[in-house]
Amino acid sequence: MAQKPSIPKGTRDFTPSEVVKRNYIFDIVKKHFQTFGFQPIETPSFENSETLMGKYGDEGDRLIFKILNSGDYFEKFARDIMESGDLRNILNEKLQSFCSDIDLQLGEKIRQKVLKFSDYNNNQFVSNTYDLHFNFFTENLNSRFQNVYSIATNEYKHHLISWSFTAIRQGRLRNENISNFVSDDVFNFDLSDFPFDALYVETVKKLISKQLTPEISEKALRYDLTVPFARYVVMHQNELDFPFKRYQIQPVWRADRPQKGRFREFYQCDADVVGSDSLLQEVELIQLYDTVFTDLKLEGVTIKLNNRKILAGIAEVIGAKDLLIDFTVALDKLDKIGEDGVKKEMLSKGISESAIEKASPLFNLSGSNADQLERLEELLKDSEEGSKGVSELRFIMETITSLGLQSAKLVIDVTLARGLNYYTGAIFEVGAPEGVSMGSIGGGGRYDDLTGIFGLPNVSGVGISFGLDRIYLVLEELGLFPEAIDRSLDVLCLNFGTKEGLAALKLTTVLRKHGVKADLYPSDAKLNKQFKYANNRNVPYVILLGTEELNNNSFVVKHMESGKQTTFALSEVETFIGGLR
Amino acid sequence: MAQKPSIPKGTRDFTPSEVVKRNYIFDIVKKHFQTFGFQPIETPSFENSETLMGKYGDEGDRLIFKILNSGDYFEKFARDIMESGDLRNILNEKLQSFCSDIDLQLGEKIRQKVLKFSDYNNNQFVSNTYDLHFNFFTENLNSRFQNVYSIATNEYKHHLISWSFTAIRQGRLRNENISNFVSDDVFNFDLSDFPFDALYVETVKKLISKQLTPEISEKALRYDLTVPFARYVVMHQNELDFPFKRYQIQPVWRADRPQKGRFREFYQCDADVVGSDSLLQEVELIQLYDTVFTDLKLEGVTIKLNNRKILAGIAEVIGAKDLLIDFTVALDKLDKIGEDGVKKEMLSKGISESAIEKASPLFNLSGSNADQLERLEELLKDSEEGSKGVSELRFIMETITSLGLQSAKLVIDVTLARGLNYYTGAIFEVGAPEGVSMGSIGGGGRYDDLTGIFGLPNVSGVGISFGLDRIYLVLEELGLFPEAIDRSLDVLCLNFGTKEGLAALKLTTVLRKHGVKADLYPSDAKLNKQFKYANNRNVPYVILLGTEELNNNSFVVKHMESGKQTTFALSEVETFIGGLR
Repeated sequence: MAQKPSIPKGTRDFTPSEVVKRNYIFDIVKKHFQTFGFQPIETPSFENSETLMGKYGDEGDRLIFKILNSGDYFEKFARDIMESGDLRNILNEKLQSFCSDIDLQLGEKIRQKVLKFSDYNNNQFVSNTYDLHFNFFTENLNSRFQNVYSIATNEYKHHLISWSFTAIRQGRLRNENISNFVSDDVFNFDLSDFPFDALYVETVKKLISKQLTPEISEKALRYDLTVPFARYVVMHQNELDFPFKRYQIQPVWRADRPQKGRFREFYQCDADVVGSDSLLQEVELIQLYDTVFTDLKLEGVTIKLNNRKILAGIAEVIGAKDLLIDFTVALDKLDKIGEDGVKKEMLSKGISESAIEKASPLFNLSGSNADQLERLEELLKDSEEGSKGVSELRFIMETITSLGLQSAKLVIDVTLARGLNYYTGAIFEVGAPEGVSMGSIGGGGRYDDLTGIFGLPNVSGVGISFGLDRIYLVLEELGLFPEAIDRSLDVLCLNFGTKEGLAALKLTTVLRKHGVKADLYPSDAKLNKQFKYANNRNVPYVILLGTEELNNNSFVVKHMESGKQTTFALSEVETFIGGLR
Repeated sequence: MAQKPSIPKGTRDFTPSEVVKRNYIFDIVKKHFQTFGFQPIETPSFENSETLMGKYGDEGDRLIFKILNSGDYFEKFARDIMESGDLRNILNEKLQSFCSDIDLQLGEKIRQKVLKFSDYNNNQFVSNTYDLHFNFFTENLNSRFQNVYSIATNEYKHHLISWSFTAIRQGRLRNENISNFVSDDVFNFDLSDFPFDALYVETVKKLISKQLTPEISEKALRYDLTVPFARYVVMHQNELDFPFKRYQIQPVWRADRPQKGRFREFYQCDADVVGSDSLLQEVELIQLYDTVFTDLKLEGVTIKLNNRKILAGIAEVIGAKDLLIDFTVALDKLDKIGEDGVKKEMLSKGISESAIEKASPLFNLSGSNADQLERLEELLKDSEEGSKGVSELRFIMETITSLGLQSAKLVIDVTLARGLNYYTGAIFEVGAPEGVSMGSIGGGGRYDDLTGIFGLPNVSGVGISFGLDRIYLVLEELGLFPEAIDRSLDVLCLNFGTKEGLAALKLTTVLRKHGVKADLYPSDAKLNKQFKYANNRNVPYVILLGTEELNNNSFVVKHMESGKQTTFALSEVETFIGGLR
């Protein structure tokens, strides 16, 4: 039975027209990356898991696509489990042994274990069970018992509690030990023994995916271009000349829930400079945005600029330094929920009335960039970090003013946060022209110590990113793709039979040599059918070279839109080609 | 502790110079794909596993990279196993029950099961064990017992045999049943019972990876571009105009053992036509090879041409139709092991002396293409299929002769097989120019029914592929990349301080607007350091714009190779740019 084919959710096939339009964007971006002195690199689609894991937070780790080891990937894991005997039996045995052997004098020690409970690494639970040293057994297993309890579902908690009380009644367990963690539950079971098996199943089900992954997967698909770039810089540091300006345009993969406009495979398009803390890099990157969007005819984009140091300075001067994240998250919502909404949220996060009062100039920081800079300077005069941020912002704004932009607008936006914990200086974001409803179409910023995680500290970087998919949608919406960009064929030669076809193929060959996208219909099918094909492919010119033309050494060109036919001598083919330009 | 970064074996980072050179090849290939009327498509990096699995043979299935399901991927599997109780105990219980309950009168039925043995699906072994109906028990488990035997290692076979003999001695098992599958082994163990546990561990270890994979992985990385293309054609059939000519340049992934020149991630670069069985497509594809390699300045490549129908015809006329594969595999080695070697191998495969005698004209089919065609025609005159192959070959050769090739050489090579089971008509292979030691740098052929596996039968396709990595190595070896192709910067402006730097940035901006790859050194570091950077980046021109130049509205250009310095007025910048061209 033939399969009905489909593709994985969150992925896309790109049709010829889409590929051509996407490449149009890529080509313009690349051209300017290059004139700005950026060099291309490419990194492998998958990296070693340890290169990626832990770099994007817990949520990121979860969204990274992992690749199964090849071959009998399960064998090692199976051997570990099975050669040590039957997992459940071992566990039962050890737990039963615990029940009879437990040292009831461990009260205080156990209490301490309970307190450390939340630090206990669940992942180690299953694996440690195999290599338990019996010396430590009583003490360790007691804490493990509690660990099991902490991850069990309510149903199994009841079993466990019930069993515990039986044990207490039988004098095998002391009440004060167990009561530390069961005190709030209702005990209405009367089972004579605890069902380890069921609890065990539950436990293993919860732990095993996380536990198993590193055993059976050592590689993972690239999640962004930044971490692989940092890895590249460290690995190739001796070949690179700093400042190193690189661009990289490659797909990344995320196991996100697919939704409108969010895909599991999508291209990132990044330009970064590492190894220079000069603010001229920020200036250049703003110019680069302006240049690219101008060349794409996407005029009137807004480049928003902020600086992490300003946000930190504000939090400092209003006395909410510890609440920087809460403060900026709230401030970031200003244009959505308004001044009152922001104030309310700040209050709810524990920022004081007086602090909010101090920050209130931020809520209506309108006016020219120069006005805003002045007010920020005043507001932050008592914060060293904040003042530095203002002076950085001022340098960038003034230099750009002096250089001029072609079509973009540069504005200060102190509410801009974008991955605050990541950026350390400038923060950029590009908004589509007014009237287009679309999120940001680009963003970036400066981050210190990009490569520190891989052992090369103190390398500052600054970079920007172009949001290909959104730029595509905006260009489509505004009709900014060049006319006929997706025309795949300039000329189709019709096929009138073997001899005529050969002559037409010769003509086609000449056209192609001159860079004309030309094709010969591959068989002498009915003319109807051949014309229909020409129409479907939207070919502007069709060439007819039948018996008569063959005898006259000529060919007829039909302009499909007007229907006008022109006869050329075969020797005049270059005249025809000249007319196509 | 910082990680020492590395990349997975078989993958590569591409440096700027490598990316630029690879893109040079891609761009030329793409340009001609387009003038030949091919349209680009792109497909997702991963496909649903069922789209890929089973399409490349067992070896291919093994080499496909599988992607772990996201989230708690193991939970379902764990639930299935564990909620049904303990796996090993169940198995033991059932096997023991088998030993005591076996119906010894089933002789003939069991014999039939044994005969069907090879049809038995190993994958079902473990899962079926859980839901065994006890009604069928004796009969089924007997065959399963043999199944276990068939997959056990020798060591466990001995255990099994030994146990079986004990069972026979005890009258629990009849000799004639067991002897069907143990007859050739030596029985020198005297264990009193069979060690199910060890056998079970061994069995599970062998089966579980294969068994487990579909449970925890539903997606897999693209293995080639052909199957995704077939899937694309079927899914998009209503949007496509046939013949559909597509090209596709994307990476593929194979879990091959990495070795020199073989990678786990590499680009494929394919052009295919589907929906036309016209031989003009073969002609075009040969022209396309010629055009691309000529444009790459890689002159003198050899395009070898064969036809599956000719190989089948030869096997037919020499009376070795059933041995077609053995015959062609041997013939394919002609230039490696010589005529005698080929004959010897054919004999060893069971091809008769007289058949080999009949085929002997093939062994020295030298001479012109026309001569070869004539001899093949004579040799194959009694085979309809063979004669058709010759006439196809003749049409292609004659048409190409009539059209002419620019720099490639087209030769008939009846020893060419290339994935014989895949191609049904023309077979192509491109060899690097003489003197370059490199395997084929391209290949392809015609395949009927490309899309049948996905439910769209009778669509003929023909396609070719360019071997990017090898073409790269050949161009590198022959020094055919354009000079300075990897120059990443045309001009570097040195930085003499804030005011001078701003003037230089203005100049840099103008240069960039004119398409010059230009950069400003980001800080006013010592001139030594700035010049060293310029040297390292191999910049041909350095611009000096110091205080004096700033005051004079001028800039100095230093040609790095000659050391010659020229002064330009800032207003003359376009003169300088003109001189760069």
